[in-house]
Amino acid sequence: MEKKIKIGLIGLGTVGSGVYKVLQNFDNIEIVKIAVHNKKKKRNIEGLDESIITDNAYEVVNDPEVQIVAELIGGTEPAFDLIKTAIKNGKHIVTANKELLAKHGEELFNYAQDNNKVILYEAAIAGGIPLIMPVKTILAGNKINKIKAILNGTTNYILTKMDVQGASYNEVLAEAQDLGYAETNPTGDVEGFDAAYKITTLATIAFGKRIKFENVYREGITKIRPEDMKAANEMGYKIKLIASAELDNEGKADVRVHPMLVPKYKTLAHIDYVTNAVTLSGNPVGEITLSGPGAGEFPTASSVVGDILAIVSELGKTDYILPMMRCNHNENAQMIDISQTQNKYYISICANNKTGVIGKIGTACGEHNISLASIVQKEVKDNCADITVITEICKEKDMLEVIETLKNDENILNVNSMIRVQV
Amino acid sequence: MEKKIKIGLIGLGTVGSGVYKVLQNFDNIEIVKIAVHNKKKKRNIEGLDESIITDNAYEVVNDPEVQIVAELIGGTEPAFDLIKTAIKNGKHIVTANKELLAKHGEELFNYAQDNNKVILYEAAIAGGIPLIMPVKTILAGNKINKIKAILNGTTNYILTKMDVQGASYNEVLAEAQDLGYAETNPTGDVEGFDAAYKITTLATIAFGKRIKFENVYREGITKIRPEDMKAANEMGYKIKLIASAELDNEGKADVRVHPMLVPKYKTLAHIDYVTNAVTLSGNPVGEITLSGPGAGEFPTASSVVGDILAIVSELGKTDYILPMMRCNHNENAQMIDISQTQNKYYISICANNKTGVIGKIGTACGEHNISLASIVQKEVKDNCADITVITEICKEKDMLEVIETLKNDENILNVNSMIRVQV
Repeated sequence: MEKKIKIGLIGLGTVGSGVYKVLQNFDNIEIVKIAVHNKKKKRNIEGLDESIITDNAYEVVNDPEVQIVAELIGGTEPAFDLIKTAIKNGKHIVTANKELLAKHGEELFNYAQDNNKVILYEAAIAGGIPLIMPVKTILAGNKINKIKAILNGTTNYILTKMDVQGASYNEVLAEAQDLGYAETNPTGDVEGFDAAYKITTLATIAFGKRIKFENVYREGITKIRPEDMKAANEMGYKIKLIASAELDNEGKADVRVHPMLVPKYKTLAHIDYVTNAVTLSGNPVGEITLSGPGAGEFPTASSVVGDILAIVSELGKTDYILPMMRCNHNENAQMIDISQTQNKYYISICANNKTGVIGKIGTACGEHNISLASIVQKEVKDNCADITVITEICKEKDMLEVIETLKNDENILNVNSMIRVQV
Repeated sequence: MEKKIKIGLIGLGTVGSGVYKVLQNFDNIEIVKIAVHNKKKKRNIEGLDESIITDNAYEVVNDPEVQIVAELIGGTEPAFDLIKTAIKNGKHIVTANKELLAKHGEELFNYAQDNNKVILYEAAIAGGIPLIMPVKTILAGNKINKIKAILNGTTNYILTKMDVQGASYNEVLAEAQDLGYAETNPTGDVEGFDAAYKITTLATIAFGKRIKFENVYREGITKIRPEDMKAANEMGYKIKLIASAELDNEGKADVRVHPMLVPKYKTLAHIDYVTNAVTLSGNPVGEITLSGPGAGEFPTASSVVGDILAIVSELGKTDYILPMMRCNHNENAQMIDISQTQNKYYISICANNKTGVIGKIGTACGEHNISLASIVQKEVKDNCADITVITEICKEKDMLEVIETLKNDENILNVNSMIRVQV
């Protein structure tokens, strides 16, 4: 009989349970140790052998039998030290930990390489969507220079609901929390941290240069108003939280997460609720879009198990397994600060209903070399004339200056929103 | 210096030229021999060394230096014999030949396996979209049981243009031929052969059982009328040529290519012009959609080069390279004939404008246990009352009998169209 490959799991929550169940289908794989937070917790997993469960995760990474460790607990500590210990002990790693990779990816991948071990992490970015392995293997002949992605299901759910129901952010958030789509403290999702972790690592492997998480610009969805949703719709757009990464001709990277007006003719505009999607542009391939479930027990398990199977298929056959899947990058990407970028903008302004206001807006833009694509004044409500502006591409710096100017104008009551527009 | 991997190309047309150009970016790869049909043809390829060009493709497959042969000529012969000869001579194969794989895949993959060589073919199905490698590797933990795909750019271009312009099939075909999107003899595309070749191989690897091309039901787009496009649109659908494969609970396969009404909330409804897309449903992953350019010099080169790089990364490191990418299937799939399937249908009927006609249609359907989802009679033109029926799911056999009954009714002038509807 073929000798079974021995797996250790750290974490038996939603993802861990899914991985446990799916691995039962593979005769050549055996889970020999599982670390949990609370051994006494009742688990509804058929056939689970309680004797392999420990509440000391170091028993997994120190177990001499274990060949592959799947880290499925998330967060930076103790995951960081557990993975390093496992590597030191000669184990290959599969992880779904986006935060850890974003913050300590460089150190981890270098340490793995020094020890001739691999760290695979398909599940960490876009859940069940095949993304990391395709980028590292079948797309390896490409220079990828642009990524636009919806990488956070919670915020996409909230934005979709706001769009469909015409409801406010706070109403929909409460509903999403009730349904378990948003956490009690939603900051990690709604302020864009989760998407920023993911785009940090995705841009690093796509561009072949290390992106530092602290250099990724980040802006959440908490200020999006139902009025913005409605105005965007009327002008042919949907508002989405977009994780974006671009590499310019000089090799400088512009990586960010913020809401965007996405034209309805783009695939990303039609990615709704908790679905994720990634549009990659590369040479020679052109533009491809990969979409599917970005989270959940089974989609995430699909990716974790896929990574495990890739390692299993190579173990014992060669000393240097999966060379294309390694993620060492000696070069740190030079970054472009958001203030130096050029964008197209949507601005929503509330003004006194007086003659000359539209003219003032046009003049302020013109003085900063900003051309307008459209300017629409709608009905007056509560003494506020609702003015919507879409600019052509202009400098972020200039746009911010115009907004400052407008805010100081006596007839402009408020600049409600400034949202960038995908071109 | 690292020793270069030696490549032989068969074919230097659109795809071959793209592959040649992209491979120039890789220092560890050298093209040492290229077979062309006509040596005298003027080629616009920078730096091309004429001395490595031959018009005898056997010089490529018999060249002892060559380690990987990329077959990029298409068609069954001489490609079939060339690939077998190359394998016999110890070479790994990369091919973009969908027809050859659909018709002779079983023999080729078995022959390669017997000789411990791999045949990779990412470019053969859906051009630049990462599809085969993801299905074989990162999705390997899944049981895929459903595929819905747009795999032919020419027909998708024609259908999109018919939809946008309200034009007839023949008008748009002529325009597509002028633009080079359709061939002078368009049969291979418009009658669904091309898509059928592709779904044959894709379903084989997704289901893990060999599908025989001759068992794939096939119906083209030549009978689609602008009126069908308009009616579909009004009811919330787009008409697309869908390559479909499903595996039922008993393991029987239903594989086919025919036009379908696709609901507008599905991603495939928004895949326009020459873009391709594949929606896969599997357990545990759920539903994922991969979309992008299905053909063209550079997208196709992306996939061919990706395959070459995968082989290169493993050569010399292990005797048994890329175990997950091998495509041997001992089992032939049991197939479900189209006549035994159940579907939802769109029917367009032209009838005399007499009372009782709608009743007769309803009765004929009822007698065959077919429930109607909707029935709409529109304005009378040229003495024809235009009646559009959408059924619930029913047996194909029953639907065909109803149509026979209706055709024999004195007040029914014609059944213009029967198109299946995606559910």
